[in-house]
Amino acid sequence: MNKFNVVGKREPMLDALEKATGQARYTDDLSLPGMLFGKILRNPHPHAKILHVDLTGALKVKGIRGAISGRDIPKKKYGIVPMAKDEYALAIDKVRYIGDEVAAVVATSIDAAEEAASRIRVDYEVLPAVFDPLEAMKPGAPVIHDEVPNNVSATIRKEFGDVERAFLASDFVFEDDFKTQAINHAPIEPQAALAMVDHSGKVTLWSSTQIPFFLRRNLAATLDLPESRVRIIKPKVGGGFGQKIDLYAKDFCAAFFSMRTKKPVKFVYDREEVFTSTRQRHPFHIHLKTGMKKDGTINAQQFRAIADGGAYNSTAPLMITLACYFIMLPYRLENLLFEGCHVYTNKPVGGAMRGHGIPQVRFAVENQLDIIAEKMGIDPLELRLKNAFHAGEPHPAKLLVQSCGFHDTLIKAAEGINWKEKHGKLPFGRGVGMAGASFPSGVSNMSHISSGAVVKIERDGSITLLTGAADIGQGAETVISQITAEELGVSLDSIRITAADTEITPLDPGTFGSGVTLRAGNAARMAARDAREKLFEAVAEKLEANVNELEAKDGRIYIKGNPERKMHFLEAIKVYQYSDRPMPIIGLGSYFPPAKEPTTLLKEDGNFSPAYSFMTQAAEVEVDTQTGKIKVLKMVASHDCGRAINPMLVEGQLEGSVVGGMGQALYEDVITEKGQVLNPSFLDYGIPTAMEVPSITSVEVETDDPEGPFGAKESGEGTQLAPAPAIINAIYDAIGVRFKSLPVTPDKVLEALSQKGQQ
Amino acid sequence: MNKFNVVGKREPMLDALEKATGQARYTDDLSLPGMLFGKILRNPHPHAKILHVDLTGALKVKGIRGAISGRDIPKKKYGIVPMAKDEYALAIDKVRYIGDEVAAVVATSIDAAEEAASRIRVDYEVLPAVFDPLEAMKPGAPVIHDEVPNNVSATIRKEFGDVERAFLASDFVFEDDFKTQAINHAPIEPQAALAMVDHSGKVTLWSSTQIPFFLRRNLAATLDLPESRVRIIKPKVGGGFGQKIDLYAKDFCAAFFSMRTKKPVKFVYDREEVFTSTRQRHPFHIHLKTGMKKDGTINAQQFRAIADGGAYNSTAPLMITLACYFIMLPYRLENLLFEGCHVYTNKPVGGAMRGHGIPQVRFAVENQLDIIAEKMGIDPLELRLKNAFHAGEPHPAKLLVQSCGFHDTLIKAAEGINWKEKHGKLPFGRGVGMAGASFPSGVSNMSHISSGAVVKIERDGSITLLTGAADIGQGAETVISQITAEELGVSLDSIRITAADTEITPLDPGTFGSGVTLRAGNAARMAARDAREKLFEAVAEKLEANVNELEAKDGRIYIKGNPERKMHFLEAIKVYQYSDRPMPIIGLGSYFPPAKEPTTLLKEDGNFSPAYSFMTQAAEVEVDTQTGKIKVLKMVASHDCGRAINPMLVEGQLEGSVVGGMGQALYEDVITEKGQVLNPSFLDYGIPTAMEVPSITSVEVETDDPEGPFGAKESGEGTQLAPAPAIINAIYDAIGVRFKSLPVTPDKVLEALSQKGQQ
Repeated sequence: MNKFNVVGKREPMLDALEKATGQARYTDDLSLPGMLFGKILRNPHPHAKILHVDLTGALKVKGIRGAISGRDIPKKKYGIVPMAKDEYALAIDKVRYIGDEVAAVVATSIDAAEEAASRIRVDYEVLPAVFDPLEAMKPGAPVIHDEVPNNVSATIRKEFGDVERAFLASDFVFEDDFKTQAINHAPIEPQAALAMVDHSGKVTLWSSTQIPFFLRRNLAATLDLPESRVRIIKPKVGGGFGQKIDLYAKDFCAAFFSMRTKKPVKFVYDREEVFTSTRQRHPFHIHLKTGMKKDGTINAQQFRAIADGGAYNSTAPLMITLACYFIMLPYRLENLLFEGCHVYTNKPVGGAMRGHGIPQVRFAVENQLDIIAEKMGIDPLELRLKNAFHAGEPHPAKLLVQSCGFHDTLIKAAEGINWKEKHGKLPFGRGVGMAGASFPSGVSNMSHISSGAVVKIERDGSITLLTGAADIGQGAETVISQITAEELGVSLDSIRITAADTEITPLDPGTFGSGVTLRAGNAARMAARDAREKLFEAVAEKLEANVNELEAKDGRIYIKGNPERKMHFLEAIKVYQYSDRPMPIIGLGSYFPPAKEPTTLLKEDGNFSPAYSFMTQAAEVEVDTQTGKIKVLKMVASHDCGRAINPMLVEGQLEGSVVGGMGQALYEDVITEKGQVLNPSFLDYGIPTAMEVPSITSVEVETDDPEGPFGAKESGEGTQLAPAPAIINAIYDAIGVRFKSLPVTPDKVLEALSQKGQQ
Repeated sequence: MNKFNVVGKREPMLDALEKATGQARYTDDLSLPGMLFGKILRNPHPHAKILHVDLTGALKVKGIRGAISGRDIPKKKYGIVPMAKDEYALAIDKVRYIGDEVAAVVATSIDAAEEAASRIRVDYEVLPAVFDPLEAMKPGAPVIHDEVPNNVSATIRKEFGDVERAFLASDFVFEDDFKTQAINHAPIEPQAALAMVDHSGKVTLWSSTQIPFFLRRNLAATLDLPESRVRIIKPKVGGGFGQKIDLYAKDFCAAFFSMRTKKPVKFVYDREEVFTSTRQRHPFHIHLKTGMKKDGTINAQQFRAIADGGAYNSTAPLMITLACYFIMLPYRLENLLFEGCHVYTNKPVGGAMRGHGIPQVRFAVENQLDIIAEKMGIDPLELRLKNAFHAGEPHPAKLLVQSCGFHDTLIKAAEGINWKEKHGKLPFGRGVGMAGASFPSGVSNMSHISSGAVVKIERDGSITLLTGAADIGQGAETVISQITAEELGVSLDSIRITAADTEITPLDPGTFGSGVTLRAGNAARMAARDAREKLFEAVAEKLEANVNELEAKDGRIYIKGNPERKMHFLEAIKVYQYSDRPMPIIGLGSYFPPAKEPTTLLKEDGNFSPAYSFMTQAAEVEVDTQTGKIKVLKMVASHDCGRAINPMLVEGQLEGSVVGGMGQALYEDVITEKGQVLNPSFLDYGIPTAMEVPSITSVEVETDDPEGPFGAKESGEGTQLAPAPAIINAIYDAIGVRFKSLPVTPDKVLEALSQKGQQ
């Protein structure tokens, strides 16, 4: 039974119709009179000095309106993490990977822009390059950034408990090496930006971004402007998955050229640019050593993780920190030594991607747990249940876990996949596996940027909700609207939402770390409450009641326990206005997670997320031993998201993440040779399609988190952590082969089966 | 000496550069992809029944996209005053003046729209018409609106004191009749509207309007939509003068056709439509009887005013009420009987226009005062000084006059025109004259619509100011920004203003009644103070001071009396943000004038404006007795606007009003014959041009009003009240001819001189 009116309802996304009918407008759908089109010239060498850029050829092309190289722009580095800025919008002296930005042009047509870009002549001095992070760390390796002579740009070493002693006290010790691949986010909408400067010199940028307010800051800094001269508007965004967190050359160039030409300027990346020159998931080299007690307790873990960062930092210090801390959940672990680093190579750049450093380590841990279970003769489910973390337990890293449904997600996932009947009992070629995980509900306190919301109650009873939150397709606007409607006791269709325009909407850190529902939802709820209280004051006067006796529900305001004395919402507004109180009724809300910012700068342990979600994935697979093809038959996604504000959207998130995890396990790999991406297209790069998607069962475990709005917490990235190890464990159950390197492609399966046959 | 940093400065208008360079965008400058163009078919008869409208011819025109008549629209009357709604967007059963809207079309080009409109066939049954309000009031006159059988649609009869007794007690009684003409506002930008409907059915309307929030309400009601489905955005507006207060068919038709076609739709009036089918100043027939005491005290006045309203009400009940109350200022008058009415005729419609009913009555009073002065042998200046109202005096109509510089404006105007040396002493053909007036600083409390403001302090120290106020060229955005900057202690260029968008900005009644600076200025000041207080809290913590010891000035926050302990504004913001307070810092302000709404519904006397301004105009003229041409040589505009927030803009207002008043006195007249406007173009209708403008001296009298923001009150319409009588009085001084009917054109001068010669 749902005790709420709007929260918990399976409401379609507010923009579903608009999207389904093709009316939704993404950045590249926008067009302005006199608009110019831009093209970026990219570098063809893995590593080179730029000796000279000659723009004269470009400037002779008919329709050309401007050409610039790195020498023409303010010498302002950018980077999403302030401490790790290492990149210019256009390369100034050096290029560091194939696809690095060297020059840019704008012209009256895209053809003219491409022609002009092709006529730019660049003299390079090619430098020795390095592609393997292990090689890059060695003394004498080519130095990619002068200020980082050993190419190691971010390092974390953290010890919890006493690892050495714990290993001595362990009954069994297991050691394994794991390797994960580069994965592109492959959003269906490529990166795009449209800029327009006004008479005062202020630049408005429509951008396919996840984080408008960070983009405003980063773009303003890079253009050497105060923030107030930059306005970011996020149109519809066709998927981000972390790739649309960074500032890109397209943003900078659109704004820069618009300021220079006084014209609107658009830059859109093509699919090859999305693959080579945006961001990707960091490949990891992992060494994992685990000490076990006889009774199945995980006693100690030692972790070495080397992340291949490619040519620039992007989120490096944050990513490697998250990897470290999420060894510590969802299992009880008193003793951990984590040594991690982010290493530059002359390859495409790693960045935030769904799970952000955690899928890689989770793959290792969950994979090894099954090795341990088998060696120790414990059922993998039992092993996980035994070590499962519970709400309220003291946490060695001081994470504050106020709600935790992990234990139940294990049980539900096992039930869903028929664990007891199937595990170890299916015929050769079929198997089941599972894996668990945990994820934060937003990380804090990124640059002290709060989530704000403004709720305005208008004269006709409609509600205007202003939020800085950036809906990138996940349905954030719908969920935040539901929260607002619930708090005001009105129907969802009373809410009109305006979001993600830095000029109009309050500050919000944006969409990352699966914190939108919790952060922006809490802010919206506070704003709704603030507006409601103002309305209550007028109603209380009229009804001769006390403000705190009132409640708003079903479009009415009641006196609690006296439902006869009530007032319709519209009537209440009139009472309010005609008592000469200010209209519209404006409520303000602002939410800061009570937590610390997790980067390598973090000196003291402490909680860094307002809440933690928990999930278990179970998989059933079938391996074709003739072709090596693996077919995923069924996935069960059991997820503790506190409370599902909109169960249909939660399921959408879970299903998307399951498919993403399948890609990680079986299909996706950005293949490079000497830094050159070999498969930068949807023909060559395999994201799972509808053909590959199995039956997916979503099981929600509700825990009603005390910090989350109406109890809600993460239901985004977390689910993407466990599908890959669950599938890998199922493959082992099916054919007895344990893969420690991703993805598991048919050729690897055939080779492994053949080796196994030879043993 | 200016004790303020920003207030009182001669700052150029914020959009001056944009306007001077042609970059400012007015409604007709806007264009949207796929936009359709509209045309309205207007009725050619003064009064007729609509028997049938045949749209088929229109629908055959190539490019036509829609055609409607009054039968196709919701049967919802509109009107700017709720109690006086009498008009449909398109006429339904009857047409009441030449130019009334009968049908409308939209097409892919304006040519196609005009062609289509011309092919609509309308069968009319022509009805008897009436053009003179005195005729229209007679029994048996044609009835223009069935629900008003005597054609008198608004009436006011008010008596203050005991008029009968006062006349008996008077030593002299004077009676005169006066007549004023129809005047078109003639804004340089004609009325325009562009509508776009979105996927959800919400209509956005860009409109050349003075009152976006009233327009939202009226348009929504007329379209039969909730207010929240209508968004009004006011682009730059090229002058309004009251004519852009009403909803017009162009607004309705643009929105209606956009909803029907799902395309953007634009309607722009041509100059002839502006003249015939928008609004004009009401012609008045006035009988004025005044009783004087021997000592020059004005003892009693009896006033009969018949306003020729044309075919519809528009602001009738408000207009006639203002006319009544402003007999009671700027002079002390204990006994007044005012009988006024608004009468329908089959002519173009009267509406709000700069001064709104008051210029007509002021023309009569100030004209007669000079007659009285001459007959009684008192200097007109002395007569005015003797009867001048002073601040704090009890007012017979209970107007609360807290500041009043009228006496000083008389002195300054007399000094400026060299009254003592010139009045009665110049050679024949030259003369000086003067007239005084008073005007409200906004009237209250129109439909309980407050002025709201939101002030956001951004992270880079810039200030975003949201105001609903509508700048229509007078510089409201500049003045409100100055007030905000002053209150925050920052420079004007820190302020970015977003105004007059009903979706984004708080409620505001709009631009009318010269209340913008006072209302919206007070709201902005309150919002700034609210934001500042929040900032002060953080600063006080940091400086270990008390919040109320702090002051903001020169971009810093100081401890009063201890200027050493201070903090730069930007540093204060950082202190605020890093104490994890919500960003941006949002301050809210809302202002309701403490006053009553002045319409004919007003039952009890009471104050109806937060403040009253006072002004005297002095004129020097030269009459060419050969041609009858009158040349205004000099005007002195002496004005008490409380405090000039921006003296340059105040002067701009005064100069504009002086020229408007000259038009009223000498040039402007919408001439009709049987309801047909004979001069609907700038070739035929004479507004004063730069050629006619004399030397104008503006003299500010500051009185520091306690209710106004930084002491400011009206500096808009008031000055337009007195130029006409000042010029008429100067003409009398020049040639001894007293004109009681406007305008005084050369033919009237020659005729009068010839009659005078015959006497």
